Amino acid sequence: MAPTDHSIDLPHRMHWARWGDPAREEPVSELLRDLVEAFLGDLTPRPAVPEEEVRLADVTLDEGLLDGLRDLLGSEHVHVDHAWRVARTRGKSTPDLLRMRAGDGSDAPDVVVRPASHDQVAAVVTWCAEHGVALVPFGGGTSVVGGLAARRDGFVGVVALDLRRMTRLVDVDTVSGTATLEAGLLGPEAEALLAEHGLTLGHFPQSFRYASIGGFAATRSSGQSSAGYGRFDSMVMALKVATPIGDLELGSSPANAAGPDLRELVLGSEGAFGVITEVTLKVRPVPEERVYEGWRWESFAAGTAAMRRLAQAAPQGRAMPTVLRLSDESETAVNLARPDAVGGSDDPEGADGSGRSGGCLMITGYEGTADQVARAREATTELLSALGGEALGTEPGEAWSHGRFDGPYLRDSLLDVGVLVETFETVTFWSRLEELYAAVKGAVEADLTAQGTPPLVLCHVSHVYETGASLYFTVAAKELDDGVGQWLSAKRAASDAMIATGASITHHHAVGRDHKPWLAEEIGPVGVEVLRAVKARLDPAGVLNPGILVP
Amino acid sequence: MAPTDHSIDLPHRMHWARWGDPAREEPVSELLRDLVEAFLGDLTPRPAVPEEEVRLADVTLDEGLLDGLRDLLGSEHVHVDHAWRVARTRGKSTPDLLRMRAGDGSDAPDVVVRPASHDQVAAVVTWCAEHGVALVPFGGGTSVVGGLAARRDGFVGVVALDLRRMTRLVDVDTVSGTATLEAGLLGPEAEALLAEHGLTLGHFPQSFRYASIGGFAATRSSGQSSAGYGRFDSMVMALKVATPIGDLELGSSPANAAGPDLRELVLGSEGAFGVITEVTLKVRPVPEERVYEGWRWESFAAGTAAMRRLAQAAPQGRAMPTVLRLSDESETAVNLARPDAVGGSDDPEGADGSGRSGGCLMITGYEGTADQVARAREATTELLSALGGEALGTEPGEAWSHGRFDGPYLRDSLLDVGVLVETFETVTFWSRLEELYAAVKGAVEADLTAQGTPPLVLCHVSHVYETGASLYFTVAAKELDDGVGQWLSAKRAASDAMIATGASITHHHAVGRDHKPWLAEEIGPVGVEVLRAVKARLDPAGVLNPGILVP
Repeated sequence: MAPTDHSIDLPHRMHWARWGDPAREEPVSELLRDLVEAFLGDLTPRPAVPEEEVRLADVTLDEGLLDGLRDLLGSEHVHVDHAWRVARTRGKSTPDLLRMRAGDGSDAPDVVVRPASHDQVAAVVTWCAEHGVALVPFGGGTSVVGGLAARRDGFVGVVALDLRRMTRLVDVDTVSGTATLEAGLLGPEAEALLAEHGLTLGHFPQSFRYASIGGFAATRSSGQSSAGYGRFDSMVMALKVATPIGDLELGSSPANAAGPDLRELVLGSEGAFGVITEVTLKVRPVPEERVYEGWRWESFAAGTAAMRRLAQAAPQGRAMPTVLRLSDESETAVNLARPDAVGGSDDPEGADGSGRSGGCLMITGYEGTADQVARAREATTELLSALGGEALGTEPGEAWSHGRFDGPYLRDSLLDVGVLVETFETVTFWSRLEELYAAVKGAVEADLTAQGTPPLVLCHVSHVYETGASLYFTVAAKELDDGVGQWLSAKRAASDAMIATGASITHHHAVGRDHKPWLAEEIGPVGVEVLRAVKARLDPAGVLNPGILVP
Repeated sequence: MAPTDHSIDLPHRMHWARWGDPAREEPVSELLRDLVEAFLGDLTPRPAVPEEEVRLADVTLDEGLLDGLRDLLGSEHVHVDHAWRVARTRGKSTPDLLRMRAGDGSDAPDVVVRPASHDQVAAVVTWCAEHGVALVPFGGGTSVVGGLAARRDGFVGVVALDLRRMTRLVDVDTVSGTATLEAGLLGPEAEALLAEHGLTLGHFPQSFRYASIGGFAATRSSGQSSAGYGRFDSMVMALKVATPIGDLELGSSPANAAGPDLRELVLGSEGAFGVITEVTLKVRPVPEERVYEGWRWESFAAGTAAMRRLAQAAPQGRAMPTVLRLSDESETAVNLARPDAVGGSDDPEGADGSGRSGGCLMITGYEGTADQVARAREATTELLSALGGEALGTEPGEAWSHGRFDGPYLRDSLLDVGVLVETFETVTFWSRLEELYAAVKGAVEADLTAQGTPPLVLCHVSHVYETGASLYFTVAAKELDDGVGQWLSAKRAASDAMIATGASITHHHAVGRDHKPWLAEEIGPVGVEVLRAVKARLDPAGVLNPGILVP
């Protein structure tokens, strides 16, 4: 079957079985491959099947129902061909990609529909509820938690509601510093529209180039500049949502006491309560200046202690950096060792520029006016120096900045040669961070070692708060025949360790299908009842992203 | 009937029909009275009835049910006498007090029960649900929105669940900067316990001396130092709640992506979903230094524009003041004119210290280490000076600080002489602030003037955000025979104006009974359905604070 014209979707259509721009597919270097084999043992290449060989779920929506959708949106916006369905199947987690690479498209939607307005979204939502058709809101398709693989059983069929025609900047309020954006805008598109007004969201997660505004809100995304600009949910001022029982419009004000904050119920709802169509966000001036620097710490513990001091000094009188990250000893060492790795450096002496190995690399970034950058940099430098940090200058910071969105490309190239690579993250309070780190790292190492594939486990802190911080883990191991099962076992061990230490199952990746069992443990049975009650009231037919989020 | 021994409750038991410490009841000065009469016309004193003449609702709980409560808590913690019931009737809004002063105690609970632990609270909640008895959680009793006047119809009786025996500091985590406090702690008690660890919440609303930790959370309180320490809800890391279907324990981490943030559903829930028994909060070091200053602005518009600039410059590199307030021209003038007024000054030349009238008084406060205060003060002074503010030194700031919790005493003294005084507040985005100000002020002036009682309407901004700010209004008018009806008419006009301009019905006073009709307009019919769904699931018998919050 020939691929269809996706021109409307370019330049932001991703490869069907890899991250990102298909043109950027490239093999790992011999050097890296040798290095990886030295750690993990001999590797067996695991190429993907050709796209046209992916076996999709049978279409169960009949022509009459498809005609119903065509009546709502026009037939040119209702897509049933193979390429469209493949491109809207699942997200971009490693298990998602392993399944696609093996030709398993069993989570494919029957049809991809492309509404152009809130009212068209609302019409499709109503139609799906009336006809018992499952609906999966699809923005950038970057979920890494199974958030796009809706349950099929019990439904007449599955519709992928593609939001990529909803790309308007609806409103800019320069006095209040807010902008209203349609949900289908991808990160770079939103930034380009805002830049015309001299504004930025400052939201730059690793998925930035391909993830959507609606998805950021629905999953509580957090960007690499969160120390300065905040989490995405903290930027959300107002939301417009189409639910099966009607529209929900929230956000009269920055904050208020008019009962529970219902915005916080929509944020993180992952399409299970309604489809977010517009988001009003805080916006900030495009920074005049950006400076990224490196710091070396003797240990991960010393570096996290310094981050804590920075975050806790910030509220009153000291400015935080815009970017604040810290790699553990393993991640720092691997970044030193691999010249083509993300965040790595061409400097043969090592990414920390110090000419010696060991220790932990911290990145601090400052963005704003020259005055803001100077103030924040001065205050931060003073504190970090006093705490024993070794300033490494801007080179490691620039290297990090250069590769900041490219991690998934390397993951995919490693999958090609038979290395299982995946990431996950968690968050806890400062007093439990060390315990959480040891417990999760230990659990993953033990699980994969027991499977005969001792892994590399790398970690960094990328989001800090006054009262705690996130941990982001990268795991690499030799892939077994059943790579999906291999990974799910390791992931279970990691998730159990998070819950056992009282941490959250996810800092910014959301719940999807993959974290649902642990969500129930995290929020308890009464918390689960709250989610179910809201779901039942807003979506009585249960058609919205079934199987996702709600335990 | 003789008053009962309330010694367990001292020193924080309020007067039954006034704000605060009964010993601080005092008449208005001749000077102030003359001044007020000059504005509002001749006044007729309106004294309160004696406490023992207050007519309470008939007790409808029979002895068998009361024995059930005694079995749960011990008979010494189950109070049915007149004084206890009077002291737990309604809150402290002007309509609440006018009713009490007139002897109307029709919203009295049948009984006041005083559990000492979460488990005892949970037992009472379960018992009430089983027996169809309405339950009103009662912390400090400072509601000004009718949040403590539960519906009686349809229930076997009404229990006031007094949380004032739950006053433990459960845990302090100095590494994370958090503390877990029981819900019954009043502001000063919580601060005293934290001060032993060198810590503070920094939450100082006008109700600080009498309001409780549980109440702050249940109503989304905001303190006078919110610019530095944040709103109370933003300090909440974790919550423990007793609901009729079981305990709800939320808060694994500072922030996460594990679905909707259910803490935000408990915050602002006003006892309608469960009883908050413990709150884990951000805490900060007790400031070494506190500096409060005054600034003069040519107009309210110039002052609010400066506040906006400060708030919008803050995220990246500039520190906010800890306190930031701005009175409009009327409030500034009144503060100048009344020597015994809250926030006023003994300086005969006027509270702004400038020796001339006109303009608007801003208060900026800085708290923290000497270094933090110096940095924030320097940056703020630089910006405000550049924007045309006139620095007035510390005298106006100290005067404000001195009287910061005393406004309600003056209100009560004015009620004695026949002046109706009440406050209310709202919040919106910066671009709509001027419109909201004019609309609300105009609506209240028009309504009361039409009733034959042209009012004084004063306003200040006391809470600022990057994207907007709150407005706090104080209204004074000659009281008519039906003061309650007179006020409710003005309040309706004000609330209608808030909704018409897209603002929130309340910034930090909560919903209660009084704002419920407008809440429905603010969150819309689907938002109302969400609240109803959660209510129905957590409290199927509907016994929790019935008639409050949920439209």
